[in-house]
Amino acid sequence: MEQALIENLKKLVGDENVIHRFEDRFCYTYDASFAEIDQKNIPGAVVFPETTEQVAAVMKFAYAHKITVIPRGAGSNVSGGTLAVADGLIMVLTKMDKILEIDRDNLLVVVETGVKTGRLQQEVEKMGLFYPPDPASLAFSTIGGNVAESAGGPRGVKYGTTKDYVLGMEVVLPTGEILNTGGRVIKNVTGYNLTQLFTGSEGTLGIITKVILKLVPKPEGKKTLLAVFNEIEGAGQAVSGIIAQGIIPTTIELLDDVYIKNIEEYAHVGFPLDAGAVLLIEVDGDKEVLDKQAGKIERVCQAAGAREVKIARNQEEAEELWKARRAAFASCARLKPTIIGEDATVPRSAIPAMIAKIREIARKYEVLIAVVGHAGDGNLHATFLCDEMNQEEMARVEKAIDETFYAALELKGTLSGEHGIGRAKAPFIKMQIGEEGYRVMKKIKLALDPENLLNPGVMFGE
Amino acid sequence: MEQALIENLKKLVGDENVIHRFEDRFCYTYDASFAEIDQKNIPGAVVFPETTEQVAAVMKFAYAHKITVIPRGAGSNVSGGTLAVADGLIMVLTKMDKILEIDRDNLLVVVETGVKTGRLQQEVEKMGLFYPPDPASLAFSTIGGNVAESAGGPRGVKYGTTKDYVLGMEVVLPTGEILNTGGRVIKNVTGYNLTQLFTGSEGTLGIITKVILKLVPKPEGKKTLLAVFNEIEGAGQAVSGIIAQGIIPTTIELLDDVYIKNIEEYAHVGFPLDAGAVLLIEVDGDKEVLDKQAGKIERVCQAAGAREVKIARNQEEAEELWKARRAAFASCARLKPTIIGEDATVPRSAIPAMIAKIREIARKYEVLIAVVGHAGDGNLHATFLCDEMNQEEMARVEKAIDETFYAALELKGTLSGEHGIGRAKAPFIKMQIGEEGYRVMKKIKLALDPENLLNPGVMFGE
Repeated sequence: MEQALIENLKKLVGDENVIHRFEDRFCYTYDASFAEIDQKNIPGAVVFPETTEQVAAVMKFAYAHKITVIPRGAGSNVSGGTLAVADGLIMVLTKMDKILEIDRDNLLVVVETGVKTGRLQQEVEKMGLFYPPDPASLAFSTIGGNVAESAGGPRGVKYGTTKDYVLGMEVVLPTGEILNTGGRVIKNVTGYNLTQLFTGSEGTLGIITKVILKLVPKPEGKKTLLAVFNEIEGAGQAVSGIIAQGIIPTTIELLDDVYIKNIEEYAHVGFPLDAGAVLLIEVDGDKEVLDKQAGKIERVCQAAGAREVKIARNQEEAEELWKARRAAFASCARLKPTIIGEDATVPRSAIPAMIAKIREIARKYEVLIAVVGHAGDGNLHATFLCDEMNQEEMARVEKAIDETFYAALELKGTLSGEHGIGRAKAPFIKMQIGEEGYRVMKKIKLALDPENLLNPGVMFGE
Repeated sequence: MEQALIENLKKLVGDENVIHRFEDRFCYTYDASFAEIDQKNIPGAVVFPETTEQVAAVMKFAYAHKITVIPRGAGSNVSGGTLAVADGLIMVLTKMDKILEIDRDNLLVVVETGVKTGRLQQEVEKMGLFYPPDPASLAFSTIGGNVAESAGGPRGVKYGTTKDYVLGMEVVLPTGEILNTGGRVIKNVTGYNLTQLFTGSEGTLGIITKVILKLVPKPEGKKTLLAVFNEIEGAGQAVSGIIAQGIIPTTIELLDDVYIKNIEEYAHVGFPLDAGAVLLIEVDGDKEVLDKQAGKIERVCQAAGAREVKIARNQEEAEELWKARRAAFASCARLKPTIIGEDATVPRSAIPAMIAKIREIARKYEVLIAVVGHAGDGNLHATFLCDEMNQEEMARVEKAIDETFYAALELKGTLSGEHGIGRAKAPFIKMQIGEEGYRVMKKIKLALDPENLLNPGVMFGE
């Protein structure tokens, strides 16, 4: 980027909020996705605005000079939604990190975009309130990033995902105007639902600067169960059986045999090495119903062939069970150096069929695929264990991933349940949304960003 | 409309599905809104498509001939969203009324647009499932209309509104292409959230032909309470107090003194004539917690100064209490011939301030205003009782309504919580969403409907 432009940027956001040395810029080339870092895509500068007005000024400037802008929170997205573009501008929003207001009476919170999700959760829980969305990245990912990606998490089955908590936002349009959407009321039908249009638009339509989020009262208590199955089919039956009982658990996490063996050898949590699948189930709510629900779930699991159902007697035992689930991804590093976690999602009832298909794909391409995931909402994470230095293997892995996508769509599912499309899945998007869906998206994108300067390529794949 | 065009329409949808005699067309001039019927706005023809392909063919035809199209379900919207346009085409979607699939495992239903909401609810309840949105019109309004308006209802406080249940849809674009959005999974972040863009777009962006709706398990039981207050302030305090206890009731309905007196004289339900306000509160869920919650609510109401709290002992007693609430609107007809129910909505904590403001407005303009509403989510219905034959009074009523809108916005509320903007509130929309919000909406509208032929004027007010 020309020095004159850098100087201009410094005037807009302050000297201390612009970095442009090569080694600094290089650090903002990538995100948490599995994407090859393209040495050609080194950004021209990185800015750290501190106010909405600065974000707007930078966007106006970028538009005047036709500079590409990539907005970014913690960069923890796994779909290549914040990868750099050659000589473009990276806009890092982590300095805008104030919790502006926790409104107890109206069960809402107003935050700046860079607030970490985990911090927000801690703050509201101190007041007896609860912000349910729980992406695995919550300790470091930002609310703005969560909203831009419409992030999910294990609690989705009962509580929905980020989108279900966004009541309104302040967003800077690609051309630099500041827009406010939604508001502080749950019922609000004035105008188009722009709030939900921007939520999950992956930074392609605007830069989210403030968010109004809905909260719920913190549940009284919770109960955690672990059910062990010889065959994964039994686990699938149990999931349907629980829902048929009218119980929507907070989480229904599934681990397959590859994961079970791997986690046990890594973390020694007491999983039987010969199990076919385990379900980690949690219910929350009023104390009076937790035992009843846990009992019902236990019986459903037994009827579906569980060889063991463990109910955690206290918070410590529950923590032990969750430790195993959390160790899942990390444990994979023992087996292979490269771990690619996909999130093609199917309707809940199609889980057994999807798992069978994934195994068929693993055999066909001789690729190691483990399955972990949020079984309650069909949001499986097929995990491809491989070695990116092995080109021959990677070619097979790529084919196996493609076929996993086709399988999910065939089962009336979606390419992405919670990770987003980014650049990684952009080449596949038409397969799901069709030519017409793509055309409508493109029309909206061009209406708001006629020069295609904000996060170009993301979702659209051009 | 020229005879040649009529003949063409008949070819597209069949002779029996086109009507064009003056007296038939006249019947489709109006909807359930309080809007003067403009004799000049008689539609040119009315079509009743039976399939999505017919809807698409008619839209293509309309676009080719630059004919305005007003889509319509039962015409029960109260904001003038389906009023006719001179020589335009009315498209009535009530013949597309099949429930295509109830998917118990995945807790969803697939329906055609013209299915009546009440019928859908009955059908899924037979299977132990529950579709919560409950607009007052549910016995006759259609799902397509509910989705287009993002209809609400008393249960919004706990269960949200129509938008929270729409997982996907089939929609015919203004230019006649068929688009499918969303899908059968709860977690779905592939592409822009077009589902929520079309939901609540009031028939201005496309014609909804099919909808995939989320269901929840039917709650085990419910409990209904009536709390009587001397002063409306106490009722407002009780609402905040209940939420502060961590209880989100299914409904918290408020009736003010004008309504109490009026309902009692009309329906003799046993309301004390000198009460300042009553709250009708319902909780649902597991049987074990209903008594506990009812007890807590009773104590909160007493602490807030309730002079009486009645807990219905059985379904019959609960029905009696609800009869009173349902009689509210009808009871007004005793007092005045013209009843205008507004739905400006405020954050829950602003209910006392909003009610005080409404009373001030009533005094200032010497207009009779009663207040009923969904207090749990701040969705009040200020009801203007007047006589449309009295021009002088109507001028005052108009000013009072305008001032009610200003008051709601000043209290960080919204022009419309659940009725929609339509033509009735279109002149006010910029006040809430601002010039920028309006511009963004307009860009989206023009991107999809460049000739502005689909429901023109609705929301935008031109």
